[in-house]
Amino acid sequence: MTKIEVVLGIDIGGTTTAFGFVDREGGVLAETTMPTNAQQSAQILVDRLHEKIEEVRGTLPDTLLLRGIGVGAPNANYYQGTVESPVNLNWGKTVNLVELFHHHYDLPVVITNDANAAAIGELKFGGAQGMKHFLVITLGTGLGSGIVVDGALLYGADGFAGELGHTVVDPDGRQCGCGKKGCLETYASASGLRRTVFALLAERREPSPLRGVSYDAMTSKQIYTAATEGDPIALAAFALTARILGMKLADAVAHTSPEAIFLLGGLANAGDLLLIPTRRYLEEYLFHPFRGKVQLLPSALEEGTSAIVGAGALIWHELGH
Amino acid sequence: MTKIEVVLGIDIGGTTTAFGFVDREGGVLAETTMPTNAQQSAQILVDRLHEKIEEVRGTLPDTLLLRGIGVGAPNANYYQGTVESPVNLNWGKTVNLVELFHHHYDLPVVITNDANAAAIGELKFGGAQGMKHFLVITLGTGLGSGIVVDGALLYGADGFAGELGHTVVDPDGRQCGCGKKGCLETYASASGLRRTVFALLAERREPSPLRGVSYDAMTSKQIYTAATEGDPIALAAFALTARILGMKLADAVAHTSPEAIFLLGGLANAGDLLLIPTRRYLEEYLFHPFRGKVQLLPSALEEGTSAIVGAGALIWHELGH
Repeated sequence: MTKIEVVLGIDIGGTTTAFGFVDREGGVLAETTMPTNAQQSAQILVDRLHEKIEEVRGTLPDTLLLRGIGVGAPNANYYQGTVESPVNLNWGKTVNLVELFHHHYDLPVVITNDANAAAIGELKFGGAQGMKHFLVITLGTGLGSGIVVDGALLYGADGFAGELGHTVVDPDGRQCGCGKKGCLETYASASGLRRTVFALLAERREPSPLRGVSYDAMTSKQIYTAATEGDPIALAAFALTARILGMKLADAVAHTSPEAIFLLGGLANAGDLLLIPTRRYLEEYLFHPFRGKVQLLPSALEEGTSAIVGAGALIWHELGH
Repeated sequence: MTKIEVVLGIDIGGTTTAFGFVDREGGVLAETTMPTNAQQSAQILVDRLHEKIEEVRGTLPDTLLLRGIGVGAPNANYYQGTVESPVNLNWGKTVNLVELFHHHYDLPVVITNDANAAAIGELKFGGAQGMKHFLVITLGTGLGSGIVVDGALLYGADGFAGELGHTVVDPDGRQCGCGKKGCLETYASASGLRRTVFALLAERREPSPLRGVSYDAMTSKQIYTAATEGDPIALAAFALTARILGMKLADAVAHTSPEAIFLLGGLANAGDLLLIPTRRYLEEYLFHPFRGKVQLLPSALEEGTSAIVGAGALIWHELGH
């Protein structure tokens, strides 16, 4: 009986952890989610994951051959196999996540952060197939980035390369969760968009449906809806976000000269509302030798499973596939 | 008779062109300079260079075996072998420089810009020996940069990666020669330092020896001398330059996570006056996972011949040495 080779793709987030089996073509089988329970230790999470994985595996045909495990996790160090001081997980200073998985599985295990995993996913199964130089920007609560150079993920000296969310837009600007001020992700992210809306509500006088929503209650979906209905505050917030994102992506191009930049994640779903003005500002701020050469594209991965596919692609890549 | 293998290292600048023979250890023989004559065509320059090279070669022992030619030139495209629209040379839109050299030499010829050549020089013969990830920043009239990733120069999709001089400090800031506003090199370069001095002379009231010097006449050497004598304007200009440079180098670290950043060129000769405060600001603006991990160092190459050694290293690298 021919075995079908698969890997496990696991995406650990602050709230939810998702996993699924990923085949050689990037197809996902039996994707499942569970609460991360961020206040508990990493060991408890991995034990719970193992239990759930085996439960799901039991329902699948035994023609599946599990080859390895790829994990996307916040602050994951590819070189060390560790997760270091994650902001949204109560895991302490350093946890060797690869070791925890090896207690349950005698298989290759590789970890990296979710944006790097997304970049590998885009390279192997998404819109970057055949590309040598590109960036992936994840626009969720924060802003993550994965940089591919010469067909390989750029990890840098310490494994943490590609942290564009913490480049500086304004050294005297908004406070960032990282302790610095004016980081890109305080402007270009779901939470950054909301901050921009609140700054505009303070600054300007137009009536807006967003004036009836509290800071805690406001979602980027509401801002998006208001923008599609022509609300000037919401539209101005998207325009400002696009300007800052376009400007900093132009900086990124001046570093690595990519063929394309892919946007994915919650805020990227605003589609043309964000993509079209960001493209215009990117072009405007590009150093002239790069103009007309860099595509800004939505991710070609499916929204729901892109993180699982990315984590799966990471370990497939490691297995030489 | 044993032959000594050498390459030619050539550095083409807007004013002066320098060349020398570079051995496998990075030693330079018979370095020579000649005027570039920027208003003349590239072909005339290469013809003149050929003549001069052969003249010098005639004076050297015939035990030298010339293996190849490395050229550092502004706006040089490594992939294409072309120089594209150089600002300071009247060479037109595109010149195939490699082809021009091949009219005279049946040898491997490689070109890149001077900052990339400096980075390869630092890697093979300078302070970056054994490093896999580092940056070289040249602080001359402008600001150039070469980025090494995984032990190889980063060229990017189009051959022009590493243009940090044209990342944006302030989108409404100083006019740059490239047509944009607020580029890093309008602040952190010899000409940027002078602009900062003039802004400070306008803003502040302290007496300063620099108040007696015209814009056209002021050199960074004069500013350096004034600073070493305690002039508050000159000191403030260095501090502002260091702050902006440190901030943008922190951005660069967030992209590629280097082990070290090397400074070289005219302004880098200000030594500790620039290096110490830039180090402090770099550390201050670094995203916390990178803090304490990145060295900011002066180039270990000799000032006078670093460009020749860099161009020589480029071709030695290509020859598999």
